[in-house]
Amino acid sequence: MNSFAVINREDITYERTDPDKTQSRGFTWDLDEDDVIYGLGETMGGMDKRGRTFVSYNTDDSHHRPDMPSMYGSHNFFIVEGKSSHFGIFVDSPARVTFSFDDIKKGQVYVLVESPDVAIYTIVEDNAYQITRTFLKMIGPSFAPPLWAFGFGQSRWGYKNKRDINRVIRGYKNANLPLDYVCLDIDYMDRYIDFTVNKKRFPDMASFVEEKKNEGIHLVPIVDAGVKVEPGDQTYDEGVRYNYFCRNEKGKFFKAAVWPGMTHFPDFFRENVRRWFGGRYKALTDLGFEGFWNDMNEPAIFYGENSKQQSFLDMVLDFFLPSRGEKKEGAKSNAYEEYEHFYHVIGGIEVCHHDVHNLYGAQMMKASGEGLKQLLDKRYLLFSRSSYIGAHRYGGIWTGDNSSTFFMLRQNLIHMASLNMCGFIYSGADTGGFGGNCTKELLLRWLALSDFTPLMRDHSAIATRKQECYAFGDPEDFRKVLSLRYRLIPYIYSEFMKARANCDMYMMPLSFGYPGDEKARRIEDQLLVGEGVMIAPIMKEGALSRKVYLPEEMMEVRYNGNGFRQEVCPAGERVVKVPLHEVVFYIRKNKAIVVSNKGVQNTGQLNLYDVVKLGYDVPYDQYLDDGITPVA
Amino acid sequence: MNSFAVINREDITYERTDPDKTQSRGFTWDLDEDDVIYGLGETMGGMDKRGRTFVSYNTDDSHHRPDMPSMYGSHNFFIVEGKSSHFGIFVDSPARVTFSFDDIKKGQVYVLVESPDVAIYTIVEDNAYQITRTFLKMIGPSFAPPLWAFGFGQSRWGYKNKRDINRVIRGYKNANLPLDYVCLDIDYMDRYIDFTVNKKRFPDMASFVEEKKNEGIHLVPIVDAGVKVEPGDQTYDEGVRYNYFCRNEKGKFFKAAVWPGMTHFPDFFRENVRRWFGGRYKALTDLGFEGFWNDMNEPAIFYGENSKQQSFLDMVLDFFLPSRGEKKEGAKSNAYEEYEHFYHVIGGIEVCHHDVHNLYGAQMMKASGEGLKQLLDKRYLLFSRSSYIGAHRYGGIWTGDNSSTFFMLRQNLIHMASLNMCGFIYSGADTGGFGGNCTKELLLRWLALSDFTPLMRDHSAIATRKQECYAFGDPEDFRKVLSLRYRLIPYIYSEFMKARANCDMYMMPLSFGYPGDEKARRIEDQLLVGEGVMIAPIMKEGALSRKVYLPEEMMEVRYNGNGFRQEVCPAGERVVKVPLHEVVFYIRKNKAIVVSNKGVQNTGQLNLYDVVKLGYDVPYDQYLDDGITPVA
Repeated sequence: MNSFAVINREDITYERTDPDKTQSRGFTWDLDEDDVIYGLGETMGGMDKRGRTFVSYNTDDSHHRPDMPSMYGSHNFFIVEGKSSHFGIFVDSPARVTFSFDDIKKGQVYVLVESPDVAIYTIVEDNAYQITRTFLKMIGPSFAPPLWAFGFGQSRWGYKNKRDINRVIRGYKNANLPLDYVCLDIDYMDRYIDFTVNKKRFPDMASFVEEKKNEGIHLVPIVDAGVKVEPGDQTYDEGVRYNYFCRNEKGKFFKAAVWPGMTHFPDFFRENVRRWFGGRYKALTDLGFEGFWNDMNEPAIFYGENSKQQSFLDMVLDFFLPSRGEKKEGAKSNAYEEYEHFYHVIGGIEVCHHDVHNLYGAQMMKASGEGLKQLLDKRYLLFSRSSYIGAHRYGGIWTGDNSSTFFMLRQNLIHMASLNMCGFIYSGADTGGFGGNCTKELLLRWLALSDFTPLMRDHSAIATRKQECYAFGDPEDFRKVLSLRYRLIPYIYSEFMKARANCDMYMMPLSFGYPGDEKARRIEDQLLVGEGVMIAPIMKEGALSRKVYLPEEMMEVRYNGNGFRQEVCPAGERVVKVPLHEVVFYIRKNKAIVVSNKGVQNTGQLNLYDVVKLGYDVPYDQYLDDGITPVA
Repeated sequence: MNSFAVINREDITYERTDPDKTQSRGFTWDLDEDDVIYGLGETMGGMDKRGRTFVSYNTDDSHHRPDMPSMYGSHNFFIVEGKSSHFGIFVDSPARVTFSFDDIKKGQVYVLVESPDVAIYTIVEDNAYQITRTFLKMIGPSFAPPLWAFGFGQSRWGYKNKRDINRVIRGYKNANLPLDYVCLDIDYMDRYIDFTVNKKRFPDMASFVEEKKNEGIHLVPIVDAGVKVEPGDQTYDEGVRYNYFCRNEKGKFFKAAVWPGMTHFPDFFRENVRRWFGGRYKALTDLGFEGFWNDMNEPAIFYGENSKQQSFLDMVLDFFLPSRGEKKEGAKSNAYEEYEHFYHVIGGIEVCHHDVHNLYGAQMMKASGEGLKQLLDKRYLLFSRSSYIGAHRYGGIWTGDNSSTFFMLRQNLIHMASLNMCGFIYSGADTGGFGGNCTKELLLRWLALSDFTPLMRDHSAIATRKQECYAFGDPEDFRKVLSLRYRLIPYIYSEFMKARANCDMYMMPLSFGYPGDEKARRIEDQLLVGEGVMIAPIMKEGALSRKVYLPEEMMEVRYNGNGFRQEVCPAGERVVKVPLHEVVFYIRKNKAIVVSNKGVQNTGQLNLYDVVKLGYDVPYDQYLDDGITPVA
């Protein structure tokens, strides 16, 4: 049917909700008792969003509580599906939007839009999957990373210097564990200044990057949104000279503290600013880097001129020692009131940051993506913390500063479903968890899920327990679980590239593949991966088995580090046992997949043509390219 | 063996951890890889506490995050169990204690005690269950509530007056739903002043209480820890006249704001103060009340003379609208620094509140319990928010201001296991969740767990969705799930009273009943209830089935609102289907239970002698008494 349309604003029953916020408007929709609600991308809570309230307002808050209303990105697309309802709604507004699903108003969807700058699209199709496909066509194909970005990456806030990076790479090599890239967190920079390198820690970065590439390892540096106030620094000087930074209501450059201390914020909403900032990546591409992550672009603000200063120590302690016990005294980071003094110039008009807040990170992604496209003659890797629908065309995202808990592992699976609905098919979580201490069991179970997510990165915070796959004693179990990733890449890469070319999902809720199956609609801990695979990972502490629901006969595949054992299983519910060193997944009836014929240590060694087929005896249509050349 | 002993302080390897806190001392213990850790009563996280850090420091914080280190009570008893370790440790200290289990120090138990006032007990037995039993003998038998306290109670912050209470009771009656008591939250008081009644809202409370009792319904008022600064009020005047309140370092009465505005805090550590405050309940027992709940006794402080005032509105909004979006600007409630100015007189010596913080709520429980014992010639009901081991002798506890999420439902089950290990066998959570909006599905699933918890109360916060069992349309499903409680009371009451008399647990982890069963050790979502029952409730949104592990053959009992269907199930893992209106539980092999022969509307109608047996064909040893007369 392909029936999306902008709702005529007059057709919506608006109501004034707040006498002080005269521009706020809400609309409601009566739900049937059996309606479920999917979508909203990066939000906490279940796959079915019903019963909860969410606020699209990009926020850097690492305490991912089950009832937290906002996260790092805003993805304002949701679907209502039930016996009589099958429609999707995209609320395209750059300001704060509240989505309350049978929560603030009982039995109703209630959407509150705080800005008059809004377009609302509705999509009506036969089922949730069709609605999503129409939406994905509408927003356009996702970013295509290079093949090496489908390898496994290791990261940690706190790898200080060349020696630390080498130690990590050696750790993986000595343990015979595969690895494709290592991320450089803020530690590599000179005093946290964007586009600089700390020369003491990395005396000759260009040769180091080259040397590592020759070993099959890419280095992936971080870039933050805020530019340090530092006369003499090229980015700062150019930003000031050409008026690229945001200003406050008095016309002065807006100033707030992030990692480097006081920073200015590039006004990414202007085309010339994006072109300039994107071009600044040349400082890094000239050193040989081909992959990047953008951070702190909600934008995160530790404190500002309008909010009380929090000590750096306090902030850090609060972050990774939530068990300190003391109540933080007036923590001020990301103070809402800071944004009141933060102005953009959009189309020549001064616009308060509040009114466009949710687009800031997305505009930074656009700046980076367009810049890197110009600077490199090949595909780049880019993933961002903050995002908005549309930015999926420029890069992927990771789901922010999660923690080492089984709770966040389960959230990772749910995020993959809802993010894929919003175009962010290149995505993944910090495997093993960023904050807190990870256990061997948690990391093994998490890897068994991340084996299937396009972005597969182990990342942890400074001062937490070492979380590399070789850091838990005998790496044998890790070798088994991680080696599956490299066996799967031919399938993962092929399905990912087909999904993006066809504006389709790469991972999706079980119910999307089995519309009409009432049981599948209630499954929140299984996913379909590409056309042929269903996963049902173990995501509970201590568990060595779990319940799996098979909507139809499937082939159960058990990987133990060497071979694949296959067994046809009838439709229905069953208990499957999965020891820590094994991974079990399913191939859908009359589907086949391809896996690498042999294990490799990085994607450079991988031959996408040397594959074997698993599953049913049917052909598999493999997407193949060089994994380097940019695609349309 | 019964081998508990005070560890000689010289035997512990102490280390100084903080130059400013010279009295802090820590000790460590090396864990084996397979050791699990049970205990710590009211703490977030799994049944196995390994991998996490907890801080005993009683805290009123309603955002129950998965990684929150402190809750309302401190229960410093934990057990290490593995192939070679089987011991329990009780760290008896009234000040802050940090328990880090394979977290801050990898592979080690690390306990940090901040006060020199500490006794450490170790218990060595063959297994975790035996260790717990020895510990429970050491701390003495739990409080015995009256029989009616095992009925179902309805509660809500916001039942303003007689009419509201009558409407609730009528709601239950008209829907043919059983009910034993209704709680009166702070709304019943005159301006939140302890031991007063708002005469406009409840013109003749004594006759109202009497009238409801005649209908089979008890009313249960709340009592807060802080006493309003209100010259003319009897409690305030007596407290000032006889010097019963805590003072600050300048010798003035310590003052901080709670519900009534500025309050003073009774110095419950002094015997004469406890006797006085316990006696003040006479104002309420004279009105006919026989049950009470103690609240805000961590003690909670909204703001004080030493911390910035937070507006009442902000506080309330922050509480039940976490989705407001704005970051709270320097929330100050329960500011750690307030306690620095809060002094007790213990044994004639001035003691800073910090040093005895965790005992404050427990001492209030002792005051109330001892007072009520004097005032009433029958058993009283008492449950408290704050607690410490030892206070279980005076009352039960509820697990504080939880929220309407499946996440907190799962936590409820885990809490029941760890609280039972610490003597708090009369306990339960706010069924349906206190904060946030509850759905029909969540309330039904929660009731199916609470059917088995001694304290079974539906409680919700003002301005959240109505959460009474009749508030979700057709009450038929609720009637089915709730009626099971009244069928079960003969068993629940009998097992509870036997457990307390024998210093045993009423609910316990599966592994405690099956020592040596490696699979049972990994089960975190099933419990044993009394000697004969195992429960495995559905605690996942949308789920209509779950995996259950049977360590041995058991009798599966399915209750559909009328009869019980029984079926012998073999040992092993199985998938069990449980529709929303049914409850499934298990009777252990060669055990029997008794259930009421017929359904009733309240415990007054219940005949404990008119029972039928379920389960295996073996005798059941039923504990019987009048449910009123105090027991030793």
